[in-house]
Amino acid sequence: MLGYKIYGLCKELFPINRSLTGDGVRETLNIIKREIPSLKLYEVPSGTQCFDWSIPQEWNVKEAYIIDPNGNKICDFSTNNLHLMGYSIPVNTSMNLDELNNHLYSLPDFPEAIPYITSYYKKKWGFCISHTERQRLEDGTYKVFIDSKLEDGYLTYGELIIPGKTTEEIFFSTYICHPSMANNELSGPAVVTYLAKYIKGLKERRYTYRIIFIPETIGSIMYLSKHIDVMKKNIVAGYNVTCVGDNNAYSYLPSKYGNTLSDKAALHVLKHMTGNFKSYSFLDRGSDERQYCSPNINLPICSVMRTKYGEYDEYHTSLDNLDYISEEGLNGAYEIYIKIIETLEKNYTYISNTLCEPQLGKRGLYPTTSTKDTHNVVKNMLNFLVYCDGDMDLLSIADKINVPIWDLYETIEKLNEKDLIRRE
Amino acid sequence: MLGYKIYGLCKELFPINRSLTGDGVRETLNIIKREIPSLKLYEVPSGTQCFDWSIPQEWNVKEAYIIDPNGNKICDFSTNNLHLMGYSIPVNTSMNLDELNNHLYSLPDFPEAIPYITSYYKKKWGFCISHTERQRLEDGTYKVFIDSKLEDGYLTYGELIIPGKTTEEIFFSTYICHPSMANNELSGPAVVTYLAKYIKGLKERRYTYRIIFIPETIGSIMYLSKHIDVMKKNIVAGYNVTCVGDNNAYSYLPSKYGNTLSDKAALHVLKHMTGNFKSYSFLDRGSDERQYCSPNINLPICSVMRTKYGEYDEYHTSLDNLDYISEEGLNGAYEIYIKIIETLEKNYTYISNTLCEPQLGKRGLYPTTSTKDTHNVVKNMLNFLVYCDGDMDLLSIADKINVPIWDLYETIEKLNEKDLIRRE
Amino acid sequence: MLGYKIYGLCKELFPINRSLTGDGVRETLNIIKREIPSLKLYEVPSGTQCFDWSIPQEWNVKEAYIIDPNGNKICDFSTNNLHLMGYSIPVNTSMNLDELNNHLYSLPDFPEAIPYITSYYKKKWGFCISHTERQRLEDGTYKVFIDSKLEDGYLTYGELIIPGKTTEEIFFSTYICHPSMANNELSGPAVVTYLAKYIKGLKERRYTYRIIFIPETIGSIMYLSKHIDVMKKNIVAGYNVTCVGDNNAYSYLPSKYGNTLSDKAALHVLKHMTGNFKSYSFLDRGSDERQYCSPNINLPICSVMRTKYGEYDEYHTSLDNLDYISEEGLNGAYEIYIKIIETLEKNYTYISNTLCEPQLGKRGLYPTTSTKDTHNVVKNMLNFLVYCDGDMDLLSIADKINVPIWDLYETIEKLNEKDLIRRE
Repeated sequence: MLGYKIYGLCKELFPINRSLTGDGVRETLNIIKREIPSLKLYEVPSGTQCFDWSIPQEWNVKEAYIIDPNGNKICDFSTNNLHLMGYSIPVNTSMNLDELNNHLYSLPDFPEAIPYITSYYKKKWGFCISHTERQRLEDGTYKVFIDSKLEDGYLTYGELIIPGKTTEEIFFSTYICHPSMANNELSGPAVVTYLAKYIKGLKERRYTYRIIFIPETIGSIMYLSKHIDVMKKNIVAGYNVTCVGDNNAYSYLPSKYGNTLSDKAALHVLKHMTGNFKSYSFLDRGSDERQYCSPNINLPICSVMRTKYGEYDEYHTSLDNLDYISEEGLNGAYEIYIKIIETLEKNYTYISNTLCEPQLGKRGLYPTTSTKDTHNVVKNMLNFLVYCDGDMDLLSIADKINVPIWDLYETIEKLNEKDLIRRE
Repeated sequence: MLGYKIYGLCKELFPINRSLTGDGVRETLNIIKREIPSLKLYEVPSGTQCFDWSIPQEWNVKEAYIIDPNGNKICDFSTNNLHLMGYSIPVNTSMNLDELNNHLYSLPDFPEAIPYITSYYKKKWGFCISHTERQRLEDGTYKVFIDSKLEDGYLTYGELIIPGKTTEEIFFSTYICHPSMANNELSGPAVVTYLAKYIKGLKERRYTYRIIFIPETIGSIMYLSKHIDVMKKNIVAGYNVTCVGDNNAYSYLPSKYGNTLSDKAALHVLKHMTGNFKSYSFLDRGSDERQYCSPNINLPICSVMRTKYGEYDEYHTSLDNLDYISEEGLNGAYEIYIKIIETLEKNYTYISNTLCEPQLGKRGLYPTTSTKDTHNVVKNMLNFLVYCDGDMDLLSIADKINVPIWDLYETIEKLNEKDLIRRE
Repeated sequence: MLGYKIYGLCKELFPINRSLTGDGVRETLNIIKREIPSLKLYEVPSGTQCFDWSIPQEWNVKEAYIIDPNGNKICDFSTNNLHLMGYSIPVNTSMNLDELNNHLYSLPDFPEAIPYITSYYKKKWGFCISHTERQRLEDGTYKVFIDSKLEDGYLTYGELIIPGKTTEEIFFSTYICHPSMANNELSGPAVVTYLAKYIKGLKERRYTYRIIFIPETIGSIMYLSKHIDVMKKNIVAGYNVTCVGDNNAYSYLPSKYGNTLSDKAALHVLKHMTGNFKSYSFLDRGSDERQYCSPNINLPICSVMRTKYGEYDEYHTSLDNLDYISEEGLNGAYEIYIKIIETLEKNYTYISNTLCEPQLGKRGLYPTTSTKDTHNVVKNMLNFLVYCDGDMDLLSIADKINVPIWDLYETIEKLNEKDLIRRE
């Protein structure tokens, strides 16, 4: 159970103030680089054109708070970075409550929660506050202080290429642009960090792995604009990893047409590893699959999550905190992705070397004592062999004969040893 | 609401004695020509060979009745033209009731209805009578008088070609061969007349429209025999318009394989415009789609109706009268066909001009205040854009993202203005 | 009803001791040859290599029994050949009950049944006994005597080629390697014998018929190894005929991908001939379809059965006897296969000779009096004609318009006579 380590990483990253850009992103990526030293960090200057978009200015915050008419400091950024609207411009002024209210955001339906609000592309300032606290605010003069900087700088991201035997790639993308929230988003980079460790630890890798830690939307657009050619050429499967921390049901969000190897592997693993899981439509998408599946990009990217963004009350509030996620939740998602990686690595196409069934008995492959277990092993072996005519890869055969692909690994090893099958 | 005008046209046409041929057809077509003056009338001589068929003789009737033993005139054609079997040969004779009964047609299950009977291709005569009246007939001598003419003449039909920007055609076919019955058939030519007015009134037309008013079966066979080459080359969608007058549920009868643009547009409009509708199989066909979908013809013709021919008790009787249809019923069918025309005209294939999502905000396409409505507009815009890779036309995308195509027109206009999409 | 003759053949063949090889197989094949004299018998020497397998030694038995401590003869092969494990080596020795028990086989769950056990590829000996009898065995010394011979010899099989107009073939395979059991297996060769008589009796045959009587598994592998090229080239449909004797529901076991002409014809006939039937998955296969559908073989072979092997309690025991099968059961399966043969023979592709519907009336094809029956005849004729554009064969059209193919034979004859259709 790696869950407690993954949870520990979430906990360490939790207090940092992340946004599209800024020192909080750098700090986050450096902690991840400590875990996977071969991670490379890149800086893209503000104003760089990326398809239809351009890299925004860099945003950093020293202090931000409000002093109420009684002299109490409220909405203090140093207490909870959600209090400050993301990308708030600097302010140092006073105003009455009416005026201040134009800059306050709260959620009447979830009165204890501080909402998460940003204004990346329109210059504004604002504070987020629990509705309960907001209702206690009295008339009078409020001092508003935001010591932020919004200036030309860099967008920072991390990239890890783990080479394999072939240039064909498996792609993982996760984002590091949200302040103190746990399921969306820290579960994503934390699980991917441990997936990267696992992949690096593999004795051999069929595929090359491309793993990126980017800010959502602008980050994936930027990354695509730099690497689209090699990505379209090499990526055979990929996943946008987000919301993988809570311990509720699993979720699946398909790629654009739902028919890629990524989808097939995800569905196979979810079917055989989980009691049940929730299937969404691509129309329910809301994260970087929006970019990865856009016209002329059309990468084979789908998503396996625990509870999907937007589908839980705590989403985008201060209640999406370290209590909302759990070691079990993180570990479950990690295990699913490990199984998906294994599935992709093992998914070759095999061809039978014999015409008709081989005689299993003379090779010791037919059990001499017959139990239900040995019966199933032989049945799976014959079912696998009968479809080994090069039309279907292993995953397709496993789906066809309705067994987990991992139940066939030993069978394949034995048949390989006896030279009864070959890889296409 | 054009329903009252369409109903008025039905009412005006109702008393006329139509058949495959004859002056009633000419009178009907001339009234329609008054509404759409560019309608061209054609006369095809009796005996003209049309594929496996030949044009029958022309039939006209001056008078027809029976004098009962008490001297009363019954089954008087001048009272209700349904009393006379269609294509009855001239008769002037007397006979007893037994003999007469061989020439009488009534419906024991619908005792008040006069049935509609014809004998186009076998020379016969007969009278149709309500079963109630028939049961009152007494023994005695009956005088039978039919002053009809069956002689070489012409089959008359109307054709209207409304040119558009391209030679590709939308086709409407309706029939004008039934005497005084309202749903089957006058609703058909009346609705098509008003569709023709609407089409002529369009500021611009992408498609050329081919609209014909013909007798059923022999008329469509004749028309196909003259125009099959151009029809196969140009027609992209078409509809056989019949039984569009009552105010009950809508019906859909597919083309031969149910997979044409005509079917797709009809199903899309019916799904989004009506609460529900009845789907028939092509095996339930019974009108001119029999010819339009025959081997080596295979035109993309389907049918949207109100209550389908053969599926209501009043069908092919005197009870299919002006009370059976209504302004609302006619108007509803008219509106459906208008929406189908609009759908076909608007159904282009669009390609996104950007890689990844465009930045909507900087073009004012992302609402600054967020309500559920604006959320849906943006969601539809992004859903539309993500499928704009040239594989799917607009109608397919609307089906895929499950919105009425007309909800996307404004989106497309905006995206066009901002040069974010182009037509394929 | 041929059922009683087919049952009679089962009864005659029942007592013979069949196995993969040996005189019992020869005797069985000679009785079948008496029924169909053109059957050719072949002998394949022991040790002949057949793909991954080789022909085993020939096995023959003179006597086999056990003498119990009281001097009684038990497990006497001459009473029931199931008492002796198939391919038992010769033995002449004494032992106590403990030691003997290692060589006894019984079924605690079916205490009255003698099980059917073989050891073809490992040299062993054994006796099969009802569990009831086994429990009565007392301690003491048992004399065991098996006078069998296992030595180089031959595998014997029968082949019948019935030529047709074309070299395209319909294939029937059935097996003759089980001792005294009725549904699995004697129903198979008995029904196939009568199918062969029927086929030979046909006035004309479109297809050539290849019919084989072989031992299961090694027999089909051997036959494929000799004839794979011609079989792959010529066979258009084929069936493995087994378990066709009981009077329970029908069963269908598809070919590997379930999409061949064999499957289509079988499903069509089962649908229209039986109230319902049980559909299995190819994964449930267990007979020679294992070989016929193996990679690079992939013949279009499926199976229509009554109760499938392995799916009835009596299977592979002495209770699968002449009481388990019946004249009705055999006759039903025979009739299904006759209908399948007829379906395949009649399944041409037709093309309409007219554009639009032909005028049926002028050719006397349109009934002058209209009843429900005549209505259906005309409806089927028009439905058939509308799909006669060369894309679908007759069977596909019958499926499409949902009528038994045999309801269209008369229609086709009439349309042919009137020159309204032609064969593709």
